[in-house]
Amino acid sequence: MPKTHSDIGLIGLAVMGQNLALNIADHGFQISVYNRTVEKTDKFVAENPNTPGGLIGSKTLEEFAQSLSKPRKAIILVQAGKATDAVIDGLTAVFEPGDIIIDGGNALWTDTIRREKALKEKGFRFIGSGVSGGEEGARFGPSLMPGGDKAAFKEIEPIWKAISAKVDKKTGKPIMGATPGKPVKGGVPCTTYIGENGAGHYVKMVHNGIEYGDMQMICEAYSLMQGLLGLKPAEMGDIFSTWNKGALDSFLIEITADILKQKDPITKKPFVDIVLDTAGQKGTGKWTSVNALDMGVPAPTVAESVFARCLSAIKEERVAASKVLKGPKIKKVSPAKKKELIKAIHDALYCSKICSYAQGFQLMRTAQGEYGWKLNFGQIAQIFRGGCIIRAAFLQKITEAYARDPKLANLLLDGYFNKTIQKAQTNWRKVISLAVENGISIPTFSSALSYYDGYRSARLPANLLQAQRDYFGAHTYERTDKPRGKFFHIDWPEATRPQLEA
Amino acid sequence: MPKTHSDIGLIGLAVMGQNLALNIADHGFQISVYNRTVEKTDKFVAENPNTPGGLIGSKTLEEFAQSLSKPRKAIILVQAGKATDAVIDGLTAVFEPGDIIIDGGNALWTDTIRREKALKEKGFRFIGSGVSGGEEGARFGPSLMPGGDKAAFKEIEPIWKAISAKVDKKTGKPIMGATPGKPVKGGVPCTTYIGENGAGHYVKMVHNGIEYGDMQMICEAYSLMQGLLGLKPAEMGDIFSTWNKGALDSFLIEITADILKQKDPITKKPFVDIVLDTAGQKGTGKWTSVNALDMGVPAPTVAESVFARCLSAIKEERVAASKVLKGPKIKKVSPAKKKELIKAIHDALYCSKICSYAQGFQLMRTAQGEYGWKLNFGQIAQIFRGGCIIRAAFLQKITEAYARDPKLANLLLDGYFNKTIQKAQTNWRKVISLAVENGISIPTFSSALSYYDGYRSARLPANLLQAQRDYFGAHTYERTDKPRGKFFHIDWPEATRPQLEA
Repeated sequence: MPKTHSDIGLIGLAVMGQNLALNIADHGFQISVYNRTVEKTDKFVAENPNTPGGLIGSKTLEEFAQSLSKPRKAIILVQAGKATDAVIDGLTAVFEPGDIIIDGGNALWTDTIRREKALKEKGFRFIGSGVSGGEEGARFGPSLMPGGDKAAFKEIEPIWKAISAKVDKKTGKPIMGATPGKPVKGGVPCTTYIGENGAGHYVKMVHNGIEYGDMQMICEAYSLMQGLLGLKPAEMGDIFSTWNKGALDSFLIEITADILKQKDPITKKPFVDIVLDTAGQKGTGKWTSVNALDMGVPAPTVAESVFARCLSAIKEERVAASKVLKGPKIKKVSPAKKKELIKAIHDALYCSKICSYAQGFQLMRTAQGEYGWKLNFGQIAQIFRGGCIIRAAFLQKITEAYARDPKLANLLLDGYFNKTIQKAQTNWRKVISLAVENGISIPTFSSALSYYDGYRSARLPANLLQAQRDYFGAHTYERTDKPRGKFFHIDWPEATRPQLEA
Repeated sequence: MPKTHSDIGLIGLAVMGQNLALNIADHGFQISVYNRTVEKTDKFVAENPNTPGGLIGSKTLEEFAQSLSKPRKAIILVQAGKATDAVIDGLTAVFEPGDIIIDGGNALWTDTIRREKALKEKGFRFIGSGVSGGEEGARFGPSLMPGGDKAAFKEIEPIWKAISAKVDKKTGKPIMGATPGKPVKGGVPCTTYIGENGAGHYVKMVHNGIEYGDMQMICEAYSLMQGLLGLKPAEMGDIFSTWNKGALDSFLIEITADILKQKDPITKKPFVDIVLDTAGQKGTGKWTSVNALDMGVPAPTVAESVFARCLSAIKEERVAASKVLKGPKIKKVSPAKKKELIKAIHDALYCSKICSYAQGFQLMRTAQGEYGWKLNFGQIAQIFRGGCIIRAAFLQKITEAYARDPKLANLLLDGYFNKTIQKAQTNWRKVISLAVENGISIPTFSSALSYYDGYRSARLPANLLQAQRDYFGAHTYERTDKPRGKFFHIDWPEATRPQLEA
């Protein structure tokens, strides 16, 4: 027997929306659902008659609004951009001031800031919530990153905590094994209030940027094992399985092992060998890189991972180029050194990953200043531990680092990460050298190392660069023997100017 | 005795504007000048009474408009952005349809596209012209990259050709030695019509992005010589002077030699040693990188050079980090191998530079498709040869490459560049290995190499990445044994899904 009014509503019944609605219903909340195409709503409700909370189909937005308890709460899960704006407009026509509108899509955080401001002026409350974990996450427990009106979040918090992924209180590992109608019980929920207006969507974007880096780094490790050792996919799958029991323990390493062990359903050959080497992208890695450039925060490793996908996309050009451009012949590493090299690749991957996360957290630190947010980096790492694509044991170390020092300037400076890189950097450098000498492309490994070596340089060669700028553009320079903020200029004498003969 | 009407006008009398006006007057054109502050105009005109063409000061925009021969031609040289829009608005109020408005500032090309469209609707003709070469270039010969209304360009072409930098017809080298009132005579002018609407400003932006790369690469070469060989600035200055006589012959190498040989006017120590290692930026490198990300064109080396400046800017953080984060102890290279290593660094710089230019020209190639321009890459390289900051003998090679094959897919594929890299790549790789093992940050050298090794890879490890995307996001994949454009998906079995214990 349904309640007279639903606890919450959801608009947009594509796979993500359906799964999130089912997840909510699984936790005993009654949920009203609406889709532009009524048939889709009817079909979805008819196919899921016995959820613990109950699904209520609405044929119109008016009906949808009337079906919700007040203050109304509605999650939008439609395409980011214009579609979201259109739905928001529709809701404001049927909702009342005080009602809560939640955007669960992959919105650009600046859109969320804009929408929050516009809705607040009309008396509505707005939450932009990152939802991470793909379709599976939406169904059985995503990582949820809500930002916006804090009081409004308090009202949806019970639902957010219920439906989010859970990690074990002691180990910090995700609790899996949910099935339809039987969600996971107990554990620490992977959601927390992130901050005002666009903070949730911003953090979600950086999460995705980090994900781009992680994926590309795994590819470089795979490429090195294949190139330098000639390993077969299944063998590499076993190595990734082993790695998944150690410091690299994570969802992406785990599925990499699965993929490498997978047979192609058609040819029965190793699956990975028949997959075309062209990677797509949906834009959040790009957004992260553009934002890094805009804020002037060094995040080169994320950018390299985006460019690596771009390079993968021009397959025909590469095939043509491979016939013309020569590199060194790969010297296979002797089997006697195999174990040693695999360990070194592991270390290179781990060190690179640390640098990439350091960059991502620097971005969030700078954005917090830019937008006046108060971000809790330890909690952010914590809610990444379950549900989302970058979930990893490693995140526990980040949480601990920020617990030790909430004002940590850079993850690299934390004792654990510093010590880890100290121990592993010889291997990291060895692997990059081997790649460089053998002609194997490793854009993120080497970018991460240059970041590390640059960040720990009290003096970079930028003195020469600034001198060049002063030379040709009179851009002035600061001096090592004068206080910061005092600017000098040399009036470069005519004598030193180029006076080439005609 | 002034003509009744000036040949052209100029608005905005900051240094760039003054210098360009004097350059124009030096070539016998009468030029009307206007500045918001009348005193500035009066002072400028009073201080330059005897130019060959003559300067006419205008106190109001009306007077300015009346002073020009029809169709009127006016160059705007004010701050990019709102100031430019304001001046355009002012001009449209006093100009007549058919008149030509030229923006010589560092406008974002999309602004130029917008302005050209808006002005065309009102009957005005608009040119967005990149002006490269800094204050010196503006005064004695810049590289000029005009885009917009082609018929309008034809009307200003005589002036553009006269005032631009000139290169020797045979050698392609810049003809220098102009002095006030005595411009260079003869030679090939460094200007050509680039393309419609924003094409000129776009090419100027990519020029600047390439410039960012060049400058950072020189810094990495300097850093390696200093770190691995312990060379003193003056000695490195001599090396750069030598390099300037070979394949690297260019303005930036030349001024680097000057800078390294320069004494600090205050301490009399080597100048470069007292310059603070924090580099500023004005945004065009960032624009280039953002545009590369937006268009999905791999241009990682430009992006790394922008991020290197960002990293240089956080000096205090680096100084603190340098006390905590350890790297390998630098093993100085033995003096016996000094010559060999210097040659290797030279080769690394040259190979990296080729890759960076290849990326820049890829950007232009893609933008041409995006915006419907018809760019002549050989001519673009040609007009870069004089006047601008990246002027270099090397550009002649690019011109020749496009002469051999105007449809060249990538500069790397040209015979000359391919052969150069073949010969030099062992050294390139050696230098990067040495940097990596010794903890010297070389973001652009290593990024350029990973670009090269990636571009010549018929198969990249992106197959694994796309398989990951199919696994967690059902993003589908293409197959090596099926035609492009057919998409497949594995319904990854539950059995392979993580089923961790709580």
